[in-house]
Amino acid sequence: MTGTGEPSRPVTPRPAEPGPPESGPAPARSAAPRQASRRPATVRPLPIAVDTMGGDHAPEEIIAGAVAAVREHGVRLVLVGRAPRIRRELDLHGVLGTIPIVHADEALDMGEGALASWRKPRSSIAIACHLIKQGRASALVSAGSTAGVVATSRLRLKGQQGVMRPAIAVALPTRPHPTILLDAGATADVKPEGLVQFAALGTAYAQILLGVDRPSVGLLNIGTEPGKGNKLTKRAHELLATGSHGIEFAGNVEGHDLLSGRVDVIVADGFTGNIALKTVEGTVATAFAEIRDAMTSTPAARMGALLQRRRLQELRDRLDPDTYGGGVLLGLNGTVVIAHGASRARAITSACDLAHRLAAGRIVERIREQVAATRTSRFGRWTHGERDGDRPAERAADRPGEKVPEIPSPAADTVPDLNEPPAAT
Amino acid sequence: MTGTGEPSRPVTPRPAEPGPPESGPAPARSAAPRQASRRPATVRPLPIAVDTMGGDHAPEEIIAGAVAAVREHGVRLVLVGRAPRIRRELDLHGVLGTIPIVHADEALDMGEGALASWRKPRSSIAIACHLIKQGRASALVSAGSTAGVVATSRLRLKGQQGVMRPAIAVALPTRPHPTILLDAGATADVKPEGLVQFAALGTAYAQILLGVDRPSVGLLNIGTEPGKGNKLTKRAHELLATGSHGIEFAGNVEGHDLLSGRVDVIVADGFTGNIALKTVEGTVATAFAEIRDAMTSTPAARMGALLQRRRLQELRDRLDPDTYGGGVLLGLNGTVVIAHGASRARAITSACDLAHRLAAGRIVERIREQVAATRTSRFGRWTHGERDGDRPAERAADRPGEKVPEIPSPAADTVPDLNEPPAAT
Repeated sequence: MTGTGEPSRPVTPRPAEPGPPESGPAPARSAAPRQASRRPATVRPLPIAVDTMGGDHAPEEIIAGAVAAVREHGVRLVLVGRAPRIRRELDLHGVLGTIPIVHADEALDMGEGALASWRKPRSSIAIACHLIKQGRASALVSAGSTAGVVATSRLRLKGQQGVMRPAIAVALPTRPHPTILLDAGATADVKPEGLVQFAALGTAYAQILLGVDRPSVGLLNIGTEPGKGNKLTKRAHELLATGSHGIEFAGNVEGHDLLSGRVDVIVADGFTGNIALKTVEGTVATAFAEIRDAMTSTPAARMGALLQRRRLQELRDRLDPDTYGGGVLLGLNGTVVIAHGASRARAITSACDLAHRLAAGRIVERIREQVAATRTSRFGRWTHGERDGDRPAERAADRPGEKVPEIPSPAADTVPDLNEPPAAT
Repeated sequence: MTGTGEPSRPVTPRPAEPGPPESGPAPARSAAPRQASRRPATVRPLPIAVDTMGGDHAPEEIIAGAVAAVREHGVRLVLVGRAPRIRRELDLHGVLGTIPIVHADEALDMGEGALASWRKPRSSIAIACHLIKQGRASALVSAGSTAGVVATSRLRLKGQQGVMRPAIAVALPTRPHPTILLDAGATADVKPEGLVQFAALGTAYAQILLGVDRPSVGLLNIGTEPGKGNKLTKRAHELLATGSHGIEFAGNVEGHDLLSGRVDVIVADGFTGNIALKTVEGTVATAFAEIRDAMTSTPAARMGALLQRRRLQELRDRLDPDTYGGGVLLGLNGTVVIAHGASRARAITSACDLAHRLAAGRIVERIREQVAATRTSRFGRWTHGERDGDRPAERAADRPGEKVPEIPSPAADTVPDLNEPPAAT
């Protein structure tokens, strides 16, 4: 599943690839830098486009994380952002010339929301989306503002055929393997049929990430019985319970099941899912702060804390959002991994590795198959209506005076053939 | 504020009260049993009706908790349930004859939901509601199934004048004082105007529980900016932001603010609030389980855990739902405290004390005032429409063959004057 999958989009045949990143002149800094490159890799997915300009610690930490992803996981990347700055950072890491660069002038600010996707057609995220549309990248990693990344990629990549609304999937740190929660915030208002589609997206995602053939799917609700919930979840339960859409529906789950590992996938609308996710994060942070206080309150307790330090640090790492790689926007014509805005290098490395695994697992194709299964069921009709991102004219009409901007073709000199490492400057 | 308030409902004058519970023959078992009874108590609220038949550990733990509430907090109670059994338990505690009993034959099973309120018009909860309607009790405490308690009390007590929908308020264990979250599950589908009313209910509740004159109110949402959210919260934000309804609106809060103590009151629809609450509870439980594992994984860590045991136990107690007294159903003609189904004596004692404080603080009157303030604002019109629990005929029509059952007047021999301790059997 890793490194052996087909590219997620049809591509024109290319000559044998010269100079893959891990065969470059990168000096080995970490203990086992080439382990990942021993995987069988006869057909490898297209590179992952990394937005080097999004995030609180851009571009230093983003580029450091990207370099680590190349070294430690053998991921093929293309870095999008201000080329001179990227070159300087790569030089500092001693890998100048081994990772392709695509220049982008503009960046979305961290405070910018959805409208920025219209105002900045040449932002690094818009250019990265363009690379995916051109078939020159398979996925996109960004630590930019979630609203900006979601809006830009919805506008540029458009919704996948048959998918009504996209969803953000996150992996919650349960045992023995993570639990997928979606939607964590892409679509705040959704119809019951949309929740069924989210179940299909989550199933495809869990198949690749967890390696489970038929992942169990729970509906996030306020009681386990079928009749519980609000209007949305009551109807969604009815639809899911028919069992005619290739989803292994396990019934309702509640708030305390988010970390219990009871099901593989938990489905919610983007409003509820976002609140549940942030509640988990906030509660974990509070619990650790309280425990740290309790542990250092007396000399005896401080002594106790010293004896436990290593195990507690491991535990904290496991529950830290940074280690589980960020959210993934599913349902568009290309995979978008959204790292936390506060991401440091380690989180970006995880995000690049996640994007690589999803591209190698052909996530877009799998979603197409899963959603087709829901369409051929008795709910067929509701997928033939509107499709997300498919109505630019209508959308422009919503905002008088605004027109859908054209994505410019990046000038030839800034878009190198991704298979040819660019000349060093 | 405690013990000196007016009763929450008009009552007929009564003769001086003979035999208040704390002057009974109860032997002092706990270390400071009479401390609470030293409060000034010239005008005390009506007794609290305790449903002894609801809960996983009913009636033993319920009655034990009630007895402790009388002894330790000086709360006046009336116990509702099977009289012979209650007498046996009181005898075991050595307080037979000091706490009034009202007989009820039926109990709602823990698995029973809303329909039970129709099927069992003589359930202990229905009888307790009847005592409130008669002006013989000020509030009700039950550890029965939340759905059953909510449905029965909505049906029997009816919505307070001007309140569209009731809400369950819980106190989250933040510092320096708790944060009130409502609605935690009473009303799954609510309109934006209903959320504004929930803000009014929460304001009244926080004034009494926290002793804050103008408690700050946050709207649970998926971003802090005003334009964020789903349709419901966007509109509710607009309404709350006008500031013309006596609510100290502090803007949007997010999932990680549940335990941050940023605001005094957090408002959400009952679906979102319930999921957020259960997510906090589940995450705390998981974090403690993980920490216990981490602490006992090596001999050194076990030694460390011994050194910290007391402080961690205190911390765990603070985050334990049992200590913060259960949820409170607000917006009806009487206050209903809903303890966890798994409540043991300690939780019931907390719940009785909470009910007593709310009754003493005249919560029903305060809510009337707060809601009136929202009505006299520019949103006046929407409070003149439907009112919860006010349409029994319509409701009966929803369920063909069912009629609204009459609450029977409990037979004279089973309803003693609450001020006269019943004769010992």
